[in-house]
Amino acid sequence: MSRPLVVDVHTHVYPPSYMAMLRARKTVPYIHDPASGEPRLIILSSDDDPSIPIDERGRPVDTSYSDINVKLSFMKQHGIDSSVISLANPWLDFLDPAEAQQWAERINNDLEETCAQNNKSTDPDNNLPLKGRSTLFAFATLPLSAPSPDIIVNEIKRLKTLPHIRGVIMGTSGLGNGLDDEKLGPVWAALEETQFLLFLHPHYGLPDEAFGGPEVTKRYGHVLPLALGFPLETTIAVTRMLLSRVFDKFPQLQILLAHSGGTLPFLAGRIESCIMHERKFVENGGDVPGPQRSIWEVLKTNIFLDAVVYGTAGLKAAVAAGEGTDRLMFGTDHPFFPPLNEGEKEWISVTTNYKAIDATFEGEQEAVAAVLGGNAARVLKLE
Amino acid sequence: MSRPLVVDVHTHVYPPSYMAMLRARKTVPYIHDPASGEPRLIILSSDDDPSIPIDERGRPVDTSYSDINVKLSFMKQHGIDSSVISLANPWLDFLDPAEAQQWAERINNDLEETCAQNNKSTDPDNNLPLKGRSTLFAFATLPLSAPSPDIIVNEIKRLKTLPHIRGVIMGTSGLGNGLDDEKLGPVWAALEETQFLLFLHPHYGLPDEAFGGPEVTKRYGHVLPLALGFPLETTIAVTRMLLSRVFDKFPQLQILLAHSGGTLPFLAGRIESCIMHERKFVENGGDVPGPQRSIWEVLKTNIFLDAVVYGTAGLKAAVAAGEGTDRLMFGTDHPFFPPLNEGEKEWISVTTNYKAIDATFEGEQEAVAAVLGGNAARVLKLE
Repeated sequence: MSRPLVVDVHTHVYPPSYMAMLRARKTVPYIHDPASGEPRLIILSSDDDPSIPIDERGRPVDTSYSDINVKLSFMKQHGIDSSVISLANPWLDFLDPAEAQQWAERINNDLEETCAQNNKSTDPDNNLPLKGRSTLFAFATLPLSAPSPDIIVNEIKRLKTLPHIRGVIMGTSGLGNGLDDEKLGPVWAALEETQFLLFLHPHYGLPDEAFGGPEVTKRYGHVLPLALGFPLETTIAVTRMLLSRVFDKFPQLQILLAHSGGTLPFLAGRIESCIMHERKFVENGGDVPGPQRSIWEVLKTNIFLDAVVYGTAGLKAAVAAGEGTDRLMFGTDHPFFPPLNEGEKEWISVTTNYKAIDATFEGEQEAVAAVLGGNAARVLKLE
Repeated sequence: MSRPLVVDVHTHVYPPSYMAMLRARKTVPYIHDPASGEPRLIILSSDDDPSIPIDERGRPVDTSYSDINVKLSFMKQHGIDSSVISLANPWLDFLDPAEAQQWAERINNDLEETCAQNNKSTDPDNNLPLKGRSTLFAFATLPLSAPSPDIIVNEIKRLKTLPHIRGVIMGTSGLGNGLDDEKLGPVWAALEETQFLLFLHPHYGLPDEAFGGPEVTKRYGHVLPLALGFPLETTIAVTRMLLSRVFDKFPQLQILLAHSGGTLPFLAGRIESCIMHERKFVENGGDVPGPQRSIWEVLKTNIFLDAVVYGTAGLKAAVAAGEGTDRLMFGTDHPFFPPLNEGEKEWISVTTNYKAIDATFEGEQEAVAAVLGGNAARVLKLE
């Protein structure tokens, strides 16, 4: 079946410079090279378990993380015309403040260079349509641990000089105190001013106690933290932004939420109901005024959702929450969720999302085209 | 507008005997009678804040909690024909083991008596249809802290002799170690055998650290714990049941999940994907075999959802997850989420859910009738 333009807005890389940095580290996150076999990436504190031999700790990190040609093959295999690559978690959150700025610049320049070289090779005169060739764009990373927000703001402004950067990716910790931190004001203002899309992505999950303690969490491998912790982290982060009135203060802010908003579309009604019934917000004398704009309004004007939700149930909620199909964008989460069996070329995680989109909009070709690539091309000005 | 039969499956009571027990306590949960004004219910540890004067701690608990006539007025006001009342959280979870059995029996007998007296008064010969009169049925409570599961099993069997009891309500802590506890096996078996519906309801939420710590949580009143903690608690609990293969071992178990499953419908696709990709489950040599039946199959055969989700986004996900409208049941969460302004008779929390049902199934009268009451009447054998 011939597909319309397909743009992947959720696809991660570790540029070689970032890999080198992780290799030089001995605390999470770090990369360990075993005596034989693939390097291991230890990304979560829970993976850095001294009872596991170091050569088996974490997860194998193959070339799909850092070799852009592997990404390009994956794109061809799955009919993806264009990818908006972003640094995978945990980005630069953990860096020593003094090093943050230089690493952000170095990695963002790497991303820009990778996109520029690739796109030039497929279209030297830069005048072909996107459909049918493999193009790359990027979400940049920010030096969030820098000693002053000015450094972050300056990097956002500098990114405007890099033509393939179309937004920034960020985790939920912000400057270390979450995204309702007032000190983030200048960052939100700079994103509004530059009209960069903010791709909000989880990394920290929930404390093990949420799942019944470390014993319970471990019993089921990565399932509870990844399947439930990640989506909740995103939902909590954006709810805190709402409650602290970030969207009232920065009404032009445009955010793309990973994994279809974590679970924001499903819980939006309950969030709205709980806010309405919260005495602190109802009584004007409360010490925290409630948000002026409702979660439904914010979902329609400030928020985009990727379509990485693996089923029609989630997609239908995402469409209903945004009141239409123009705020939803296809993604893969590559290189995570790889094929289940060695040698398989088709990724079931990707085909599941393709099928969910087809099933959700059965027969509505315009809606399918919007979600697969039209929305991303329009919002990120890719053409 | 004339509605079809309306059954409320999510509506709580504190029978007078339970209120008396809470009044006699000095630790959470307890009821405090201030010098003037309504009694205060201190139900969450976070509400029992010594920096708040005791007369202002917790929330006011008016007669809507314990006077069944207030519930009956609420039902008439909102066009509800029948209510399946259940003890509100935290049920009997906190009781001294030696006291659990007698309190469960006493409270369940109270519930039975309340339903029997009321229904007899509206239909002395017990032969009228449900539609148009106010009937009551109940979900019973279990002595989960009892010193032996036999006591719980015996109470489940005894409940079969109480004609208005149509199921049991339970929190997520089970015997204290969650619902994936192997010791719960006899309880699941007894529920299967008696064909009682299990109404699974949250109470414990998430640890404050999930929201950024106690300071952050408090900043927004009850919004984060109630809007996000409660739904996640339910979702985590049922996912742990799935992962520990409760539904493979007890395939006839029938569970009604509060708040449309917390957020299970939305996250089901991601849960399924994470299970498929979990090495422990993929490699058969893992120490925990994965579930045999997928979350989608369990959603279609073991799980019912209430329709207490305050919007079409959540409802559409719930319908898609169950592959139809026959597993979804109207509820109100009365007496929680009361009117916003004093003197208001119409509860916006209830009308929001009515409107969401109408909007989700625009024009499909059969689907609306199924969700509003038909499903509950069939599953709980109310007619």
